[in-house]
Amino acid sequence: MRDLDATPLPRSAAHPTAHAEVMPTLARASRRQGLTGLAERLLTLRALLADDLKALEATLAEVGAEGQDVAWSAGRYLLARPGKRARPICVLLAARLGGRPGDRAVLDCAASVELVHAATLMHDDVLDLGDSRRGAPAARVVYGNAASVLGGDHLLVDALRKVRSAPVAVQHALVDVIAQMVEAEALQLERRGRFDGDRQAYLDVIAGKTAVLFRWALQAGGALGELPAEQVARLGRLGDALGAAFQLVDDVLDLEGDPAETGKSACTDLREGKLTWPLILASERVPGLTARLAAFAQAEGDVDDAEAARLVADVKACGALADTRAEAFARGDDARAELAGLPAGPAREALSAVIDTVLARSR
Amino acid sequence: MRDLDATPLPRSAAHPTAHAEVMPTLARASRRQGLTGLAERLLTLRALLADDLKALEATLAEVGAEGQDVAWSAGRYLLARPGKRARPICVLLAARLGGRPGDRAVLDCAASVELVHAATLMHDDVLDLGDSRRGAPAARVVYGNAASVLGGDHLLVDALRKVRSAPVAVQHALVDVIAQMVEAEALQLERRGRFDGDRQAYLDVIAGKTAVLFRWALQAGGALGELPAEQVARLGRLGDALGAAFQLVDDVLDLEGDPAETGKSACTDLREGKLTWPLILASERVPGLTARLAAFAQAEGDVDDAEAARLVADVKACGALADTRAEAFARGDDARAELAGLPAGPAREALSAVIDTVLARSR
Repeated sequence: MRDLDATPLPRSAAHPTAHAEVMPTLARASRRQGLTGLAERLLTLRALLADDLKALEATLAEVGAEGQDVAWSAGRYLLARPGKRARPICVLLAARLGGRPGDRAVLDCAASVELVHAATLMHDDVLDLGDSRRGAPAARVVYGNAASVLGGDHLLVDALRKVRSAPVAVQHALVDVIAQMVEAEALQLERRGRFDGDRQAYLDVIAGKTAVLFRWALQAGGALGELPAEQVARLGRLGDALGAAFQLVDDVLDLEGDPAETGKSACTDLREGKLTWPLILASERVPGLTARLAAFAQAEGDVDDAEAARLVADVKACGALADTRAEAFARGDDARAELAGLPAGPAREALSAVIDTVLARSR
Repeated sequence: MRDLDATPLPRSAAHPTAHAEVMPTLARASRRQGLTGLAERLLTLRALLADDLKALEATLAEVGAEGQDVAWSAGRYLLARPGKRARPICVLLAARLGGRPGDRAVLDCAASVELVHAATLMHDDVLDLGDSRRGAPAARVVYGNAASVLGGDHLLVDALRKVRSAPVAVQHALVDVIAQMVEAEALQLERRGRFDGDRQAYLDVIAGKTAVLFRWALQAGGALGELPAEQVARLGRLGDALGAAFQLVDDVLDLEGDPAETGKSACTDLREGKLTWPLILASERVPGLTARLAAFAQAEGDVDDAEAARLVADVKACGALADTRAEAFARGDDARAELAGLPAGPAREALSAVIDTVLARSR
């Protein structure tokens, strides 16, 4: 049931530049995929968080407003691109589970998690020489690598300042999360170009790269909403599962996503020699694939589009993409199981819609 | 009164590799320069802090001990090179001004400031493509740029974790300091290659690049030593003055320092197009120099040693180096004036020796 919306929009319209609202885009994407029920639930979520999300964008738009240097320009450039804001939405909803609306402290926490995420994107693009991000040239392409490193530093430090209205334990937890993210990034860097199917190394990387930040977002929101410790712990497990699902879908999108939707070049991970779940599965199943993947990643700049297409076809043919989607759905089930133990109400419904969106997302 | 010590030592002896004690090296350097009185005072300082400095090196040697990744290797590589440890010594002495010895919390704060300093060195060397640091190839040369960026991130995060035993205000102040350091670095990046003699831009850069960290070190120590607020404020001003003096001497050493002593290549700032005080003064005095400096910095890889020597000679001839030393001494006087208002005793004597060492240093 693809409608007119499916016609690729001109880039400027598909990716509005200035802190646009996120939910209509997600709802439209869901409708396009025929997930009308989910689209409706997202619109309910949007109504619930309408004011919070507006205030969040306003908060993000003010980040570094007084900073005049090129590194701030680079940071603001990325922040103004419309992201999914999945992590701040987790903060907002977890706080609401405890009955706390999006007041200043909650909004600052929500902005903080988006800032940490944006900072890692900026540094990642420098480390990986990524050229395109959120449907536009990466900050490092526009402002240079040095400005992008320092811009990421700006955002990181700003995140640590914004979180000061939260309890000290929440502040310290954020520093620990950043530590884990750096470690995961370093582990990934070290393993680059190795497709020897080390499942544990992959799980370590995605835990640190993605899951810990979802974990923190939900637990910070829960702590601000003054939920009991047992429920905050449950939110942590929900975050782990949701983060893993998110990353597994990301892995799939890298191989079969539409760059016009994802805002990133196709097969970026593949080209960069990054271990992803479908590649691990396919390496285990297709003889000789490990060597071909390594050779493809080593070619780097000299991209062989025909070989890329053959690799993607082989990964698909052995069922690795479908099994990765299945793995993501299993993590989604884990997340839903945790959700069931949390207080019923509109916030829980909305979190359920977030889980479904993460699994259904095409960008 | 140069003695046998003045014979250049083999690099391995001049730059011992594994967390050696700092003070004997400084004392030897002072003796070499005929500053026998200062050498004696440094040995007194060394006796006062002997146990603390040993414990500091042990603390630094344990940083990232469990980290297995290449980014930790890069971080540990730099930390193990013998630095001057000027900033941690400031923490230790300021705490002692309040009668607090180097207990765990004080040592962690002292290690923390060295970690922040080391992190900025690692990032700077990536941004500036610096090849040599502390008398050895820079971490980025040995481990690569990406590992060096992430290694710096590791050290920064570890600094924020180590400082947790300090009062929350001290922790927050450290984040603010890092924010200022990033801003100064970005400002410097933006102005690279411009020698238009903007004195204010220079002062902004050195305040953020160097002075704020000395300020924090002294104030954190003072707060841990439970000095009255008025004296902590005084320590802040002392830090500003000491940091400015430190940077001005750095500027001089870049142009006339002996690479075997400084552990850095000669004329690094000059090649990188970095605005330094002697270059600002010389640009104001020598017609046509601004254009020559800009042209020299633009040549980058293609270094013209003869032109470098001519530039240094011209900067010297117009008195800019001597006047920069004089400016450093004036800042030293400011620092000493603040010192006079602090509690008398061995810690104050030792801080006075630190000020003199900063002014006399050749590395």
